[in-house]
Amino acid sequence: MRILGVDPGLTRCGLGVIDVEGNRRFGLVDVRVARSSAASAPPARIALIADALDEVIDTFRPDAIALERLFAQQNVQTVMGTAQISGVVMLTAQRRGIPIALYTPTEVKAAVTGSGRASKAQVAAMVAKTLGLDALPSPADAADALAIALTHARRPAATGTSGTRTIAQQRWDAGERAARRGSR
Amino acid sequence: MRILGVDPGLTRCGLGVIDVEGNRRFGLVDVRVARSSAASAPPARIALIADALDEVIDTFRPDAIALERLFAQQNVQTVMGTAQISGVVMLTAQRRGIPIALYTPTEVKAAVTGSGRASKAQVAAMVAKTLGLDALPSPADAADALAIALTHARRPAATGTSGTRTIAQQRWDAGERAARRGSR
Repeated sequence: MRILGVDPGLTRCGLGVIDVEGNRRFGLVDVRVARSSAASAPPARIALIADALDEVIDTFRPDAIALERLFAQQNVQTVMGTAQISGVVMLTAQRRGIPIALYTPTEVKAAVTGSGRASKAQVAAMVAKTLGLDALPSPADAADALAIALTHARRPAATGTSGTRTIAQQRWDAGERAARRGSR
Repeated sequence: MRILGVDPGLTRCGLGVIDVEGNRRFGLVDVRVARSSAASAPPARIALIADALDEVIDTFRPDAIALERLFAQQNVQTVMGTAQISGVVMLTAQRRGIPIALYTPTEVKAAVTGSGRASKAQVAAMVAKTLGLDALPSPADAADALAIALTHARRPAATGTSGTRTIAQQRWDAGERAARRGSR
């Protein structure tokens, strides 16, 4: 299964593609960060990011898209640009018939590291380890996009009906429980 | 000139089309409210609204799109759905090569009524009067979409280079000045 993870943003949008074999083996396919300049008009910026998204989908044909879910506590001005891009990503997935799932930052941290309160650096390090990368993915948006894709690969629903949980999924469960305890 | 005004929203999205002759005569072409149910998944909801937008553009071929600009002081959860739709509207305009302009709620009130602090009811009444409608446009999203389209028709840039301001434009200027005085 091939998963495209998207860390949405108007200035920088992380796009990470991974392959998953049997829930345990993960491979990096592509990672890039689409950018637009704040000096450009918003419609042109949105179209730039949308074009980059289309190019990644056309090139790598993901089976699913995983998108970071926005949260209210972020800076509202940033949220608006990020929400605009999220809307475009959801529309693109829907119109192309690609399943899309949304994950909160806490879910992503929990799925990747086992702790919903892991730091950005811990997430990036675990992404690199899991994908067998020689260096940390950079910039942060690239690491985040890959982390979101990994979250989808490890989601509980990926278990199937056998009831057996992989080590990764057990870690996901534990991280999620811990994150719930830590949340408001 | 034909203008499509959009009051963006995920649950209800107002779409109002007007014709403008010489900055003074305005005519209603079409007004509708696209809706999506909160019971549906967000990607499907966004696509429903996007399809309605495409249908209006394909049917009425506007020369310009006017979109309400979001503001930070609104409820953040509502802002996210609204921002997602705004992103889709901007992408659609950009990809179709239709000029798009954004106006704040205060600018819309000032342009339509002469006061940046007018009530919703005052805006709807002035929209009906300006367009020669027998009844107030309903629901509110329909009135708002037409008000946004009227704002674009009356924008100062529409004056041209003669330097002469129409009555409507003078009202716009006065309303904007008043709104500025009233703003934080």
